[in-house]
Order: sequence, then C-alpha cells, then structure tokens
Amino acid sequence: MHVEQLKINYKTLDEFKKFRENGLEELAMHEELHSKLIENLNLSPFYGIYDDGKLVARMSLYKMDAKYDRYFDPPQDHHELWKLEVLPGYKGKGYGSALVRYAQSLGLPIKTNVRFGAQDFFIKLGFSPVKYDPIRDRGENPYIWQP
Amino acid sequence: MHVEQLKINYKTLDEFKKFRENGLEELAMHEELHSKLIENLNLSPFYGIYDDGKLVARMSLYKMDAKYDRYFDPPQDHHELWKLEVLPGYKGKGYGSALVRYAQSLGLPIKTNVRFGAQDFFIKLGFSPVKYDPIRDRGENPYIWQP
Repeated sequence: MHVEQLKINYKTLDEFKKFRENGLEELAMHEELHSKLIENLNLSPFYGIYDDGKLVARMSLYKMDAKYDRYFDPPQDHHELWKLEVLPGYKGKGYGSALVRYAQSLGLPIKTNVRFGAQDFFIKLGFSPVKYDPIRDRGENPYIWQP
Repeated sequence: MHVEQLKINYKTLDEFKKFRENGLEELAMHEELHSKLIENLNLSPFYGIYDDGKLVARMSLYKMDAKYDRYFDPPQDHHELWKLEVLPGYKGKGYGSALVRYAQSLGLPIKTNVRFGAQDFFIKLGFSPVKYDPIRDRGENPYIWQP
C-alpha cells in the first residue's frame, strides 16, 4: 500500500470528483491550474493511494506554521489533516489508517477534525480530543496527536 | 413552523443523540450540565424546530465578536452557523430553510461551512462562497451572507 503526494493536474482533479468532500479547495486548485498560476507538475497538499491506477483514498495534509497554531501549547509547527476519505467499496482495507500513519511518519504533531463515527479510528491511532472551545473550534471536533 | 432557542438540559442533549453531528460541543454541554456549572434552564447556542414534541431540525448559531472575524471586510460582529441538520424523514419540508431564514432575521452577517451537496440550498438563500484561503479555511467550504 503506497502513499504518494498527488500532483496538481486535471487527472487528479478529475479523480477528486469521486470524493464526497469536494469543495472550494478543489475549485481553487482548478482555477489556479486553468489560469496557469501553477505548473502541471506541482505538488498539492493531497496525499493518496492508488489501486490499479485509480485513486481510492486521499487526505489533505497542510503544514501550519507555529504562528497559526491554536491547538498546541506551546504553539508549534504542525500538520492539519483534513478530507481523509476512502471511496465506497474500498473501506475496511486499511487505506485510511495507512494515510494517517504516513502523516505520523513525517514527525510533526497533527490536528484533525473528527467526524461522528470516526472517533475510535483516530483514538486507536493515538489521537485525543481537545477541550472544546466555541470561539476556536466553531462546531468542529478537534483531535490532536503528538509524536 | 416555529423556531425556538433550545434549553440546555438532559432532554435536549438526549434529542441531540439522534443527529449525526454529535461531538465535542455536545459532550462539553453534557459535562457542564453534569457539573452544575450551568443552570438547567440556560439557553444553548442551538435553535430547533419541534414536530409533535420531537426535535426534528436544529442548527447552532454562535455570535462572534468582530475581533474574531476572519471573513468580513471590515471585520464585524456576525453569526457563525454550524450543525444545520434535519432528521431523516423530515427533509424536503422546509425545516432547514426555516432555520436559516430565522438566522437571517436576526440581522447580523452569517458565515457557514457548506457541505458538498448543500451549495444550491445556501445560494438560493442568498449566500456566496468566499475565495478559498488554506490557512484560514483549513479544508472548509465557507459561504457568507450579508443583510
């Protein structure tokens, strides 16, 4: 099971359409690509796993500078993990945990927003819930992991 | 169709269990209630609609001070709307739009994070997508509305 950083190109953006969490971030990538602000071969913040040439799982892993950190004390450089998603038909095969373990292997603390039903998945991988703060968390369910 | 602000009590928290987006915010309310930090009759940031005594739709509407605003220019007091959800079996009857219109009737600008599939719903209610900023938006799909 090989995790790779996804290139920003039309093929990748086309594969993204199969995923549920397809929104303004993908639209912005499409617009940048269209307006040639970025090169075809540039790397995106997305990592994925291909099965037989088809993207079947992905996550976005964005490096946040300590100055934007609102979750660790003291503030530190960390990764924010979002849009972890495995396509229907490929769930339960370890693709999701392979992606999270890859993120952990990069050595920085991680913050993610856990959807209802995925708490146990993240707890097994060593994440813990934070104490909820409405101004900061705005309805999210932030979980953090430290190396 | 009557929208009302929900009280923080065990009955409300029990009704919340039927909703998908049940996470750290509800847990924090439960802990506060349990430790008597808040009174039984205090009001929550949640608004809902009852049908025959059963909570069938809800949203959280949190007032953000201008100093926490990252979406409007110039920064202003606004409402953040999250956890808008209608129970299965009650969708398509106008409960969701009744809640959003109630939020609009309060007169402050609104920011929300729109899930995939709900874009048209919010656009019809006058919301527009923002220009995506990864540091600020962190994978979300922010839409805003101004009175």
